[in-house]
Amino acid sequence: MAEYTLHCFAQSGYSYKVALMLELSGASWEPVYTDYFKGQTRTVDFRETMNEMGEVPVLKHGPTRLTQSGVILDYLTETLGTFGWNDNTERREILRWILFDNHKLSGYLGPLRFLRCFTGNGETDVTKWLEGRAVNAHEVLDKHLQGKPFVVGNRPTIADLSLCGYLFWPDEIGIDFTPYPNINRWLSGLQDLPGWKAPYDLMPGHPLPVSA
Amino acid sequence: MAEYTLHCFAQSGYSYKVALMLELSGASWEPVYTDYFKGQTRTVDFRETMNEMGEVPVLKHGPTRLTQSGVILDYLTETLGTFGWNDNTERREILRWILFDNHKLSGYLGPLRFLRCFTGNGETDVTKWLEGRAVNAHEVLDKHLQGKPFVVGNRPTIADLSLCGYLFWPDEIGIDFTPYPNINRWLSGLQDLPGWKAPYDLMPGHPLPVSA
Repeated sequence: MAEYTLHCFAQSGYSYKVALMLELSGASWEPVYTDYFKGQTRTVDFRETMNEMGEVPVLKHGPTRLTQSGVILDYLTETLGTFGWNDNTERREILRWILFDNHKLSGYLGPLRFLRCFTGNGETDVTKWLEGRAVNAHEVLDKHLQGKPFVVGNRPTIADLSLCGYLFWPDEIGIDFTPYPNINRWLSGLQDLPGWKAPYDLMPGHPLPVSA
Repeated sequence: MAEYTLHCFAQSGYSYKVALMLELSGASWEPVYTDYFKGQTRTVDFRETMNEMGEVPVLKHGPTRLTQSGVILDYLTETLGTFGWNDNTERREILRWILFDNHKLSGYLGPLRFLRCFTGNGETDVTKWLEGRAVNAHEVLDKHLQGKPFVVGNRPTIADLSLCGYLFWPDEIGIDFTPYPNINRWLSGLQDLPGWKAPYDLMPGHPLPVSA
């Protein structure tokens, strides 16, 4: 039996952040499929026994159950000893980018991709608004990465693993990445890390059934 | 001269989280007005010298300059010794709610209030979408607060100070709080803390000039 169990589904960028951390760290882990598209995360049972916030990822490690990708990544830096910080100042700089990501990058890319790919509603004023916000976040991140291999310091940290959560699906997100050369170079660097895998190769549930 | 300088403006819920922390902790602090409505946070100068993310709050404390309210609150638990955690498990539980807040509560209430109050565009598909997301977050928080005085443990922490950032403006946000009795009780408890002040009484820039 694997040491870590990750409740997730293939299309979840937030779950991918954690799956990638586990895989790149060589952890003993297994994914367990959560049927988000059939409403499993929003059931009373899921909220009571897994996550009151009604979301994946959920990580189980012995008696410990954790939710929110940023919290799980923080925990795994401690138990796995990888992708963490050298001191409290660096811990806060990593947290700064994880908060930015949850609020302004993944926070807008997640619903934008969901509305574009999984609802069949096409372009609306809401997708336009979300794209505008996501583009702002891309500009901030691209400028930050100018001359830098990774987001914080000279090595990959959980800040990188959080920020890249939705960025390996450019076609599904539908934002032209061409104006962001630093983001493209940084993503290539992450793909070069030993053990890197794409989201659909790390978690179950892709492709979706045609009837979904 | 005050020990802490907070760059902010009265209408910023993210700045309020930090202002309230400083005020409730009895810190020596002063607010400095940032003219968000005239675009100050988006200038090249602001991004280069204050915050590459183009946002307030920005806290200055001696040689230290910090951004992202969640990071600033984390820092202030250390320097002020208030509203923090007892151990690493509690630190992560607080972080879990701060991430939830940045992504799903303040993260949606901020733009919802901005679009409703400060743009003059009235109700749109975007405000409807944001309200739906914010209502979901209210339901999660209200259920969590059932039988609890505060979000984590039996005392106020920075999780409470983060989550309440936009909730003292119910009229400006335009969401009916009646269905959330636990949120209402919890907010009353925060208002009863010695030194509590409303956002417009803590930070400069209210009311906006009529021409804004």
